[in-house]
Amino acid sequence: MAKQEDAFKKVVSHAKEYGFIFPSSEIYDGLSAVYDYGQNGVELKNNIKQYWWKAMVQLNDNIVGIDSAILMHPTVWKASGHVDAFNDPLIDNKDSKKRFRADVLIEDYCAKLEDKATKEIEKAQKRFGESFDKAQFESTNERVLQYRAKQQQILQRMARSLEANDLADVKSLIEELEIADPDTGSKNWTDVRQFNLMFGTKLGASADSAMDLYLRPETAQGIFVNFQNVQKTSRHKLPFGIAQIGKAFRNEIVARQFIFRMREFEQMEMQFFVQPGTELAQYEAWKQKRLNWHLALGLGQENYRFHDHEKLAHYANAAADIEFKFPFGFKELEGIHSRTDFDLKAHEEFSGRKLQYFDPERNENYVPYVVETSIGLDRMFLALLSHCLKEETLVDGSERTVLSLPPALAPVKAAILPLMKKDGLGEYAQNIFNDLKYDFNLIYEEKDSIGKRYRRNDALGTPYCITVDHDSLTDHTVTLRDRDTMEQTRVPVAGLRSIIEEKTSFKTLLSQI
Amino acid sequence: MAKQEDAFKKVVSHAKEYGFIFPSSEIYDGLSAVYDYGQNGVELKNNIKQYWWKAMVQLNDNIVGIDSAILMHPTVWKASGHVDAFNDPLIDNKDSKKRFRADVLIEDYCAKLEDKATKEIEKAQKRFGESFDKAQFESTNERVLQYRAKQQQILQRMARSLEANDLADVKSLIEELEIADPDTGSKNWTDVRQFNLMFGTKLGASADSAMDLYLRPETAQGIFVNFQNVQKTSRHKLPFGIAQIGKAFRNEIVARQFIFRMREFEQMEMQFFVQPGTELAQYEAWKQKRLNWHLALGLGQENYRFHDHEKLAHYANAAADIEFKFPFGFKELEGIHSRTDFDLKAHEEFSGRKLQYFDPERNENYVPYVVETSIGLDRMFLALLSHCLKEETLVDGSERTVLSLPPALAPVKAAILPLMKKDGLGEYAQNIFNDLKYDFNLIYEEKDSIGKRYRRNDALGTPYCITVDHDSLTDHTVTLRDRDTMEQTRVPVAGLRSIIEEKTSFKTLLSQI
Repeated sequence: MAKQEDAFKKVVSHAKEYGFIFPSSEIYDGLSAVYDYGQNGVELKNNIKQYWWKAMVQLNDNIVGIDSAILMHPTVWKASGHVDAFNDPLIDNKDSKKRFRADVLIEDYCAKLEDKATKEIEKAQKRFGESFDKAQFESTNERVLQYRAKQQQILQRMARSLEANDLADVKSLIEELEIADPDTGSKNWTDVRQFNLMFGTKLGASADSAMDLYLRPETAQGIFVNFQNVQKTSRHKLPFGIAQIGKAFRNEIVARQFIFRMREFEQMEMQFFVQPGTELAQYEAWKQKRLNWHLALGLGQENYRFHDHEKLAHYANAAADIEFKFPFGFKELEGIHSRTDFDLKAHEEFSGRKLQYFDPERNENYVPYVVETSIGLDRMFLALLSHCLKEETLVDGSERTVLSLPPALAPVKAAILPLMKKDGLGEYAQNIFNDLKYDFNLIYEEKDSIGKRYRRNDALGTPYCITVDHDSLTDHTVTLRDRDTMEQTRVPVAGLRSIIEEKTSFKTLLSQI
Repeated sequence: MAKQEDAFKKVVSHAKEYGFIFPSSEIYDGLSAVYDYGQNGVELKNNIKQYWWKAMVQLNDNIVGIDSAILMHPTVWKASGHVDAFNDPLIDNKDSKKRFRADVLIEDYCAKLEDKATKEIEKAQKRFGESFDKAQFESTNERVLQYRAKQQQILQRMARSLEANDLADVKSLIEELEIADPDTGSKNWTDVRQFNLMFGTKLGASADSAMDLYLRPETAQGIFVNFQNVQKTSRHKLPFGIAQIGKAFRNEIVARQFIFRMREFEQMEMQFFVQPGTELAQYEAWKQKRLNWHLALGLGQENYRFHDHEKLAHYANAAADIEFKFPFGFKELEGIHSRTDFDLKAHEEFSGRKLQYFDPERNENYVPYVVETSIGLDRMFLALLSHCLKEETLVDGSERTVLSLPPALAPVKAAILPLMKKDGLGEYAQNIFNDLKYDFNLIYEEKDSIGKRYRRNDALGTPYCITVDHDSLTDHTVTLRDRDTMEQTRVPVAGLRSIIEEKTSFKTLLSQI
């Protein structure tokens, strides 16, 4: 556990040191759970966006994109259920005046029970090597079973109460378990209340006409309300999809784990509109297609797994997560949901408009079913950053930090490095930069020793370093160093473009899906 | 004037009919001054972004990008002056309960005076052809001069009063001029008050700790607060720049002219940090560089002009707009501002941190000066859409609508069209699509006559149509139709990639800057 935490801390500090992610408004001591993407972060993020957009929109002749606004008519969020049901159960401690998520307090209590169980098991495992006492073993086993049964009982009761919106029972549970404010130990709690997670704002200045708006908590509704406009103007037949990348906002009470759960975040969502009855086959197909998109990045099949939801949201008839092995364990990276016709029907009801599709094959009108794929762009960023950051010990015993990003996603494709600035090496390197800059994002660097510049570019994930030396001036070759193998080869300047292109282009990546 | 309005209406309806721009939340009757980008709009918008990003970040080895969050620490907006001074003067009519911008009411009054002057001039011009009465001419001239002098007097008084925040005098002016509510004629006004244009929201759930936040009204401050983090981690020496594309929000009371002035909009800004004393030379250089970026698109030099500001904002020592000829006249498209060290110094003061740069050449610490280029992405979109939309009468007397977008910015690069679906033409065309889709955004269409498909692709700006016919199956050639010349040439399938690449790539566009 400590080792995982250390690894995660390294990711966070590397992200800042190399210009990937800075805390928002850091000179004002930051804004909790909000982050800014630095000069290398924005390039990696843009490359992830492009990889997704090209794979979804450009490669599929039946998927188109849109870019809907963050501000929407407030009735959209009535229809979607967010005004009434997008809540966290909160509880205040009367003494410390601190606020907590009631469900998190209870989950933390259960986590402590599990810790106790783990300790019992570890103690018993230690004894294996020494002596075997059957009675002792049985009593350990019994205690472990009891700890686990108690956890299950608590979590089930909490789930039932939250489902029934019986907040009084959630409070009773906290009191029965004698859960205390973790900082002060006080057990003096208020009632549990529901707190809506949407950020609110007001549109317009007139007292009469000011309108209560929300910052969208998800991008999906922007696609649903545009379904008919897009279908009619693009003339696509079912099945067809609408894809979107955009910001969403959630006023999280407990935001954790760096950019894994932020208050301002970015989603990449695709809603696929299908004939009713075909949705489960489409759902299965999209699960596989989305997994393949991830696998093409080469981070290793063992780092992904499906988690099929047993308990489904009210709008879904099937749902699964693609989980990724983050430094803090397997967690949701992407969701694939069969959302039925819930959303479009709700918008029909609240808007009073028909949102039907005329199916020329079936010769009838109906509300399409929807299969959705939804991935958190910032989580995808974190998955890449945390997986690809490696400390390597080299043959000579020295260490290096390398960020082995998939080359198509690397912020910088090549660093152009004159061995020294003088003797015309600087100008020669600048000319290479100016020749290649139309095709690739490059760095030109002349400061520091060549070894330091190699290490620095390893740490920010640059696939190639190109070194100009005195020989270059006469034989027009340069040293090409590979980030991963650290092999150095001599190549003609005229061949650089095609070598970099082959290694770093989206085409190379996309053709592996 | 009526002709201009007609042309503008055509742009708006074309934008909707061809999937460029839809009113936001249209099924809920829309949200005023907020728009969604449709399937072709999002591609055009993304292409504009890429053109800007590549020109600014990729081609310049001393400019890097960032992507800072929309939510920032509220003190940022104290320091920038937005909390205190980002206001509109509003006035309510007590009878109609309607709210107006006081300055707009006064400006509209002056516009009416100018209309009167124009009518006098037109009447006099008409008389030229008939007879010349010196006395009559002189009296006309005097009235025109009076109308204009009055306007100037009113506008100067208003400017003085607003500058001094003497809102009582702004109200007096409205009363003296007997300005009435344009809808009801009522002159029963409230006092004038300042209304802040920032959208507010609240972060966090606890009553104690809830923080009043703003949706950023400009992206620039996200760059200023990150200046030091970026400079230190990128190790750039002055002069160097930070570029950013992102959303900003302004609670405009009077939002007008489609996507020209929206409540939610997108900016492309670059702050160039320079040595004090060099800022005016840098300012002149950036004016020219930014104009060249626009001119490379080929919309015609006569459609751009500089407007140098005589009256400067408190933070600027030089400022100019690049104005574009929109259907409603020359209007600001981009601003270039020499902002001095105002912003960084203000953030030093409010944050208590030093935001200085150590200059190794001068061997001293100082706060850099800033030259900024700031362009409205949505305005750029509107400039392209309105300029490129043309109704042409062809030689045979028929009409066509064509959107002659610069090929690199066109949403779709080529349409792949089988003459008919059967006889294997559909499969052959699909194979071409699948071969080229890794390189270009394409459309595959098999519905409707080939003529209709040509017209449809003209209207959405597709540079090339590629038609597969029976001959294609045996000689592996296709008909390539050029959007602008409508010329059709027979080309080998194997040559398509390089033809499309040459015409539509960013490299082709960027090398013309």
